[in-house]
Amino acid sequence: MIAGGAGGGGDIAAGGSSGGRIIEMIEIGHKVATPPKTTTVEKLKRRFKETFFPDDPFRQFKGKSSRTKWILGAQYIFPLLQWVPEYSFKLFKSDFVSGLTIASLAIPQGISYAKLAKLPPIIGLYSSFVPPLVYSVLGSSKDLAVGPVSIASLIMGSMLTEVVEPNKDPYLFLQLSFTTTLFAGIFQASFGILRLGFIIDFLSNPTLVGYMAGAAIIVSLQQLKALLGIVHFTNKMGLVAVISSVFQTTSEWSWQTILMGLSFLAVLLLARHVSIKNPRLFWLSAGAPLASVVVSTILVFTIGAQKHDISIIGKMKHGLNRPSWDMLTFDSRYLSTVIKTGFLAGITSLAEGIAVGRTFASLKDYQVDGNKEMMAIGLMNVVGSCTSCYVTTGAFSRSAVNSNAGCKTAMSNIIMSITVMVTLLFLMPLFVYTPNVVLSAIIITAVVGLVDVPSAIYIWKMDKMDFVVCMCALFGVLFISVQSGLAIAVGISVSRILLQVTRPKIEMLGRIPGTKIYRDLNHYKDAIPIGNCLILAIQTPINFINTTYLKERISRWIEEKMEDDKQFALQFIIIDLSSVSTIDTNGISFIMNLKKTMTKRNLEIVFVNPEGEVMEKLQRANSVDDFLGPNSLYLTVNEAVIALSSSTTNL
Amino acid sequence: MIAGGAGGGGDIAAGGSSGGRIIEMIEIGHKVATPPKTTTVEKLKRRFKETFFPDDPFRQFKGKSSRTKWILGAQYIFPLLQWVPEYSFKLFKSDFVSGLTIASLAIPQGISYAKLAKLPPIIGLYSSFVPPLVYSVLGSSKDLAVGPVSIASLIMGSMLTEVVEPNKDPYLFLQLSFTTTLFAGIFQASFGILRLGFIIDFLSNPTLVGYMAGAAIIVSLQQLKALLGIVHFTNKMGLVAVISSVFQTTSEWSWQTILMGLSFLAVLLLARHVSIKNPRLFWLSAGAPLASVVVSTILVFTIGAQKHDISIIGKMKHGLNRPSWDMLTFDSRYLSTVIKTGFLAGITSLAEGIAVGRTFASLKDYQVDGNKEMMAIGLMNVVGSCTSCYVTTGAFSRSAVNSNAGCKTAMSNIIMSITVMVTLLFLMPLFVYTPNVVLSAIIITAVVGLVDVPSAIYIWKMDKMDFVVCMCALFGVLFISVQSGLAIAVGISVSRILLQVTRPKIEMLGRIPGTKIYRDLNHYKDAIPIGNCLILAIQTPINFINTTYLKERISRWIEEKMEDDKQFALQFIIIDLSSVSTIDTNGISFIMNLKKTMTKRNLEIVFVNPEGEVMEKLQRANSVDDFLGPNSLYLTVNEAVIALSSSTTNL
Repeated sequence: MIAGGAGGGGDIAAGGSSGGRIIEMIEIGHKVATPPKTTTVEKLKRRFKETFFPDDPFRQFKGKSSRTKWILGAQYIFPLLQWVPEYSFKLFKSDFVSGLTIASLAIPQGISYAKLAKLPPIIGLYSSFVPPLVYSVLGSSKDLAVGPVSIASLIMGSMLTEVVEPNKDPYLFLQLSFTTTLFAGIFQASFGILRLGFIIDFLSNPTLVGYMAGAAIIVSLQQLKALLGIVHFTNKMGLVAVISSVFQTTSEWSWQTILMGLSFLAVLLLARHVSIKNPRLFWLSAGAPLASVVVSTILVFTIGAQKHDISIIGKMKHGLNRPSWDMLTFDSRYLSTVIKTGFLAGITSLAEGIAVGRTFASLKDYQVDGNKEMMAIGLMNVVGSCTSCYVTTGAFSRSAVNSNAGCKTAMSNIIMSITVMVTLLFLMPLFVYTPNVVLSAIIITAVVGLVDVPSAIYIWKMDKMDFVVCMCALFGVLFISVQSGLAIAVGISVSRILLQVTRPKIEMLGRIPGTKIYRDLNHYKDAIPIGNCLILAIQTPINFINTTYLKERISRWIEEKMEDDKQFALQFIIIDLSSVSTIDTNGISFIMNLKKTMTKRNLEIVFVNPEGEVMEKLQRANSVDDFLGPNSLYLTVNEAVIALSSSTTNL
Repeated sequence: MIAGGAGGGGDIAAGGSSGGRIIEMIEIGHKVATPPKTTTVEKLKRRFKETFFPDDPFRQFKGKSSRTKWILGAQYIFPLLQWVPEYSFKLFKSDFVSGLTIASLAIPQGISYAKLAKLPPIIGLYSSFVPPLVYSVLGSSKDLAVGPVSIASLIMGSMLTEVVEPNKDPYLFLQLSFTTTLFAGIFQASFGILRLGFIIDFLSNPTLVGYMAGAAIIVSLQQLKALLGIVHFTNKMGLVAVISSVFQTTSEWSWQTILMGLSFLAVLLLARHVSIKNPRLFWLSAGAPLASVVVSTILVFTIGAQKHDISIIGKMKHGLNRPSWDMLTFDSRYLSTVIKTGFLAGITSLAEGIAVGRTFASLKDYQVDGNKEMMAIGLMNVVGSCTSCYVTTGAFSRSAVNSNAGCKTAMSNIIMSITVMVTLLFLMPLFVYTPNVVLSAIIITAVVGLVDVPSAIYIWKMDKMDFVVCMCALFGVLFISVQSGLAIAVGISVSRILLQVTRPKIEMLGRIPGTKIYRDLNHYKDAIPIGNCLILAIQTPINFINTTYLKERISRWIEEKMEDDKQFALQFIIIDLSSVSTIDTNGISFIMNLKKTMTKRNLEIVFVNPEGEVMEKLQRANSVDDFLGPNSLYLTVNEAVIALSSSTTNL
């Protein structure tokens, strides 16, 4: 008869109710079943499927006629075919509107981001022309607005300037940019093809929040050059370098530029603010950038930029993208940098693109296949690298505008792309007098949203450790470099997960009065410990990095229990394996040793509810040397307790 | 009223027994409790303790008088003080015997291993003199026999020869060896002080089995030089290099050497075999090496080595260890190599020493504190590096002999050390004519036990993936290098754990007939799925690297359930969180989105038994935006099912 701890644990064998007995009679002696036999090959197949095809993309093909299979296949590869057949003029109208809207945003942003990436402004427009067309054929998101984005531009700009001076050798810089784009595309596409989508999952939300904020600040700081009209500005990106350079060049500050910059910045931020408050006025923030470009250009043209020393974009060549595959270079001196940059720009822009896609998909309740999107974005960049474009992806701000403007299909991307084409062909001369300061104002307005303080606060509330990760990303980017900030944050997040496995939770269970439910004593204060019986639940897979810990920890539980609970001599140990999903050879030998040492100490130890794989391995180990012995496996903690108690009563 | 799937699921509300009703009345409406409030500081403190002081080493001091505290403290630092007080002549006798026995093993092995590490033979004896003394004061294992070991010798030999030719510049090589030993000691001690014991846990059993086997083979191959009497032998360690070098130098083979080598090898292996078969004859394998050294030396002396071209050790300087701190070098050209080598030699020898200590501790049922052992071994090597010793640790073979010889305390190490001292002072001249071939035979006999085929087979039986790890370690060592073999194996094991977290198990639960127990449908074939209700159990912490997978996978479960189970319209989804020990911000937002999307699809989703931390975060998230709504948390799956069923009956 097991005697309970405080209050009424004693009557456990009676289940705490007149109904108890019956239930016990029903429940006692449910044996832990042997999982059905599966060959190693079957196991490997299942494991492989779960790892690389969790979404089972080919399920839709099952049991279809070969003709439908062909159609579905074609639609799978070219999502375009899904909507083109039933495309209507009604849909076209809304796509047309939203297409023009994002174009009005894409043109100034394209020019601005290109400058951020230290590239000629026109590359930004090139990159808003070809990639959208490619995506509209291959992409499965309806809302994604494709083009250059701030983060990727920043990464390319900062990492490539480390090896080449864009001002000294612009052609080589251009070559490296295109090659980087190629590698970015190859990485992205291969992640998709090799079903390695989970790689971008390593960028956790806290990491991204911190990283984006850091990047946004770095980007905004870069704008101080144009905003203050500084001529000799540092090439470095770091917070310290930029700030100091700003105050070393106070002599170069031009009040006209500052005045103009601040006023336009104010207008743009106001427009943004209004649109956020009232989404129906999305066109305000959407139109504002182009409007301010037009206004400022006319202004500068009339008053004359030179004599008020306001720097302007100046003459740009017009015409469409020229092929650039002949510019791709694999010079060993730059290759490693180009590959690194490609990987980083690729993975971050991928993360942004996929995140945006998923966000709007879940808003409008349709599916986007992560791996398919990766292939689409990857291919888009590969094509881009051969047509004078640099890294592009789905931009958050523009996609939001696109969706608010009521886009229905990827057609809106085509409309945008055509508008950009028209601009490239005929409207380039109009940008000659566009002041750079306005472009900087546009960039700042675009990135200010990336500093997401509410999320940071939310993360702090939720999980302090996540907040640490977030801050590491932020300060890493600000004070070390764009790439190491990300690396540090990812490193911490991963080692944190390893630590969770190395130091798994073990719970000490007690019975909730009047029930047969056993729960964590620290969590459920009314739960009653069973006097002569220690019930532990291991909360994680058992494997080589935690067996030693489990051994030490459990023996400590036992000693503590013996010391604290003088009232009852400890007789039984029940280990609940319900939460142990997998176990390796170290884990198995841990269990064997545990059983043996406990028996040596005259403690009876039993195990509860081993899962399929665990059960299988336990049996295999037991067949080698018979360590388990009879009745040492139970289906529920309650059954174990009752069985053990009756065993004592029978003494 | 929930209707069951196949056979009798329907009567669930009646619990399957007359007693059922009562229990339900008892069980229904147990609310999931809010875990007691704990401040972040408390949490951090607990987390810190669990991570670095799981064994709570200071528990023994609690509630003791300050005097006892002092004594306990002294004993904690110098375990010597635990046994010296009650040391008796009876204990001394058995320690004396075992001490002499391991000495007879330590002397020839010391010389041999030193040669393996490309060091002068006498360094091996130095290393069997000082370190055992240090360990006997600081070490807490009774059985550990301390001295040079094969693996560490191999690592040092192979890694240092990459930067210095031991034949060309022996003095520099010696310097680097001592410096390596210093770093090894520093690493080991700091692991102990910083409580980073879990670092050696990263060397899983399969890794070690494969690694040791590979090392043993490499070591044995090295012996072919002496065994065949080859003069011009490769300095490389790799399988291919050695084999080819052996067959390029067939002209140098000397039949006398080969004959002598094989005969002694045969004797030694026989002795080893007999001792294994019959442990009482341990002295056979213990005495054989020294015996064969003596016999072979006399033999060579009488017949004359030179004229039968058998290579001999030759003249060795005698006398005790000289101080070597003046030889420690931190030359930047070699520093990185020395540190790398020190780390690797340190961690592997640490793994061996700790493993040996734990093995015999559990055999004789006493405790060894891992972190304390690390400090002892580390300090031992630091001292060693200043007294002309190279890396030492607890050797498995000698410790086994020590324990079989009936050692009682660390005194046996002192006896051994004194014997070695006597040898150093007076007996060195006797080794002049000792043939190298016998030393090689001794090494081979010592390492042959490291090729542990039964374990490999056992691992194959238990866990195919572990076997892959094991083989990677083996072939990595054989064909790439001693260090990369280890690196690859560890890399695979760790990424495997990450993969387990990235692709967690999700189980689909059903009710075991006539009970209120819910179990995995794939495991328990008699379990009954609940018709209009999908019950999923997530088996792992929910965090950023698996939220995307969980989302995709769960939506696939739902679609499959809807397709397969036409009989009942899916109404309810029950997510069992019992096994989710921790959750991060990504995880929380995953749960929020899940709840929202399901509600959007008119599916009611409820959660079962969130653990302390999970519950806490869920509530915090809920307080921010109220997504959970009423009755969406239940204590058991059964309660959830019953509550939902009644909700439908009330419709």
